[in-house]
Amino acid sequence: MGANSSTALGAASESSDGRISAEHPGVTDLFAVLAYGEISAFYRLAEEAKLSPSLRGRVAVAKMAGNEMEHFQTLERALADRGVDIFDAMAPFVRALDAYHASTDPSTWLESMVKFYVGDGIAADFYTEIAGALAPEVADVVRDVLAETSHSEFVIEEVRTAVAQNRSERDRLALWGRRLLGEAITQAQYVMAQRDELTELVLTATGDLNGIATLFEHMQNSHAERMRVLGLA
Amino acid sequence: MGANSSTALGAASESSDGRISAEHPGVTDLFAVLAYGEISAFYRLAEEAKLSPSLRGRVAVAKMAGNEMEHFQTLERALADRGVDIFDAMAPFVRALDAYHASTDPSTWLESMVKFYVGDGIAADFYTEIAGALAPEVADVVRDVLAETSHSEFVIEEVRTAVAQNRSERDRLALWGRRLLGEAITQAQYVMAQRDELTELVLTATGDLNGIATLFEHMQNSHAERMRVLGLA
Repeated sequence: MGANSSTALGAASESSDGRISAEHPGVTDLFAVLAYGEISAFYRLAEEAKLSPSLRGRVAVAKMAGNEMEHFQTLERALADRGVDIFDAMAPFVRALDAYHASTDPSTWLESMVKFYVGDGIAADFYTEIAGALAPEVADVVRDVLAETSHSEFVIEEVRTAVAQNRSERDRLALWGRRLLGEAITQAQYVMAQRDELTELVLTATGDLNGIATLFEHMQNSHAERMRVLGLA
Repeated sequence: MGANSSTALGAASESSDGRISAEHPGVTDLFAVLAYGEISAFYRLAEEAKLSPSLRGRVAVAKMAGNEMEHFQTLERALADRGVDIFDAMAPFVRALDAYHASTDPSTWLESMVKFYVGDGIAADFYTEIAGALAPEVADVVRDVLAETSHSEFVIEEVRTAVAQNRSERDRLALWGRRLLGEAITQAQYVMAQRDELTELVLTATGDLNGIATLFEHMQNSHAERMRVLGLA
């Protein structure tokens, strides 16, 4: 696949500059999985806010959750522009994303904060890499909904402060971070195995299977960097 | 109080056009109670979305909740402009608003929808009336955070459809609506009894105690109208 061995599908939906055109059928899947990611993150955050020791924490989380809904609405408009109903489009991704959240259900406020920061980061790495190979009007939507928020600063401070003086908490959260990465990759693979058009898009975007391996290597490096930022490595 | 019998406080903070100036100390309370209203509505909506029979319903509720957070951030900026920390300012209102929500905890999806529509409406009536007596820069903030949203349409349709063919559900929800109004008034009275500056602002805004009686009459009429719109009267 990729530039040299495109499938019929890939060839038909590559634009003249070699970027994946907006007509590629995998683009609908891409927007849809992002959209269900936003709505499920919204409800997980709202739920986990109960773990917050303070009103300040609950407000910070509510702002993050509100942000997810702004992104959701961007994707809803982008899908509507494609003549696609967002609920139909999201349906194939409900199971994998729900499974990810069920298998990484935080039991403490700090686990919730680490999950927010690390999970968001893993997703952003993946989609940003893909965005680089997409036609500008598609890439813009993807980058828009991945835009860094100032809320990350709140999370970093909460976690760094808590683990600075507490080695066992730090070790526990370091393991937790590793588990988040593992579960995210498991569910991403499950989605790829189910959705041919999305998989084709990802393969085209990364070049080939070696490109995917390189992408996962980048993601692991960025993950390690994020763990360092949180004081967990 | 009001135009003819202002207290020293009221006289000092009325602007030349007779409107309550931005310097009135009750304005901070007004913004703060609105802000805690938004954050508590956010978390109640997120919680109640679990009662939704469909993803469509959960998404609609998440949008409403996201909207509350946009309003919260408007109020946070308005309070910051006054040099006030929003958390300090909200503290006196936590008890009354939490009590309102605890005493009106919906047990079904339809109760939750009615509460959203009716509760929002009661609050909007009250604050809109007050806004009419405020200096424009204060009134703008209040009107901004009370702006009607298109989400109301979703709620109206959900409730009307459900009760059209079901008389016992309709009767049950009609009682529920009455209870919401009663609890809202109870908690509003509790707040007024605790917060002198806010009470002074409300008395100045409505003219006098007769003005407050008229305000409550308006609110009851609007409430009845909302119940009719929902098909509950």
